Amino acid sequence: MPDASNRRSTERTEAIMRTTLDLGQEIGYAKLTIEAVAARAGAGKHTIYRRWPSKGALLLDSLLCLHESALAYPDTGDVIADLRAQIYGAVDLLAGPSFGPLFRALIGEAQYDPQLAAALNERFITPLADKTVARLKAARDQGQLSPDFDLTLAMAILSGPLYFQFLITQGPLTHEYVDRILDALFAGMEPRPRARASRARPATSSVRPVS
Amino acid sequence: MPDASNRRSTERTEAIMRTTLDLGQEIGYAKLTIEAVAARAGAGKHTIYRRWPSKGALLLDSLLCLHESALAYPDTGDVIADLRAQIYGAVDLLAGPSFGPLFRALIGEAQYDPQLAAALNERFITPLADKTVARLKAARDQGQLSPDFDLTLAMAILSGPLYFQFLITQGPLTHEYVDRILDALFAGMEPRPRARASRARPATSSVRPVS
Repeated sequence: MPDASNRRSTERTEAIMRTTLDLGQEIGYAKLTIEAVAARAGAGKHTIYRRWPSKGALLLDSLLCLHESALAYPDTGDVIADLRAQIYGAVDLLAGPSFGPLFRALIGEAQYDPQLAAALNERFITPLADKTVARLKAARDQGQLSPDFDLTLAMAILSGPLYFQFLITQGPLTHEYVDRILDALFAGMEPRPRARASRARPATSSVRPVS
Repeated sequence: MPDASNRRSTERTEAIMRTTLDLGQEIGYAKLTIEAVAARAGAGKHTIYRRWPSKGALLLDSLLCLHESALAYPDTGDVIADLRAQIYGAVDLLAGPSFGPLFRALIGEAQYDPQLAAALNERFITPLADKTVARLKAARDQGQLSPDFDLTLAMAILSGPLYFQFLITQGPLTHEYVDRILDALFAGMEPRPRARASRARPATSSVRPVS
């Protein structure tokens, strides 16, 4: 019965990943070990090592598989609304207790571990970048994005300010912060020509007063 | 002779910081210890601990004091040229062998060590943000920056894409990357009204073709 066997294997994998996140949230990344995950999940240590070479790799997979749906990209036809919805979802994850602290630790670890850094990019950043670029390309075709905007920079420009807040200032990641960043990125830093009232600005949340 | 005594103290401090960077570059952050710095610098371990509570704090100070001049902000009157010069200096540091790997490790450590994260912000990020905002405020007064641009976001928007490349994709940080990011941030993502030829775009490097 290969189907039942496959299902059992999938269930075992999911149980290990769930245990990784639960235990990681309880005791923190530093104290998390593959041995402790194995013990709590009732799995063999070697079963885990066969699939994941390090606790970083196990944690990365667990974070991605169990939170994938939160990073979906809507396409309602309104690029600002869609970017906003997607980025709200991303910052809710980053700011939440089950994802944020472990993901922060994982990125910390990726500064020492090139294999983990490569996995983070291959498994997480690149797929998200592909979705972002596809959504923005459609927006450009519909005239909602500047035809000059370099799509290869989209991830760096859109998510850079979020990672800066998450990793460097470690300040709060709120929807209001996302709104302000999107407003600023869409409007650009350089002065616009006159006749501001007539420019075709999409209906975003209001521009904040400048300090 | 308080002057001579002060000078000796300053020289000792500088010798310890230089040794920290030299040794850190040789053996890497993970293997760096305060004991090893003390031994090589010919200083007492307690002398170092009296001043720096952890190797992270010692390394942060060493990186900042010995590279401060590389982060100066010019003011030639042309805001794009000045930002470009300052950010070129910053990415040269980040991409260089004496600063980059140790600074990367320090940010990694700051993901686990809230005291180090606070020191990084207080000693490095906030002073740089203040200089950036002051330079941009002058530019805004001269009409070189959109009057709507929210200056409190300046660091996140300008340096976010650099940290994204440095910490997440870990791709090369080149002057060409800086040029493309500045072009995109100044122009903005939203479509401009017609009559593009007449808009008062500062003379920056050419806009790259969109992929």
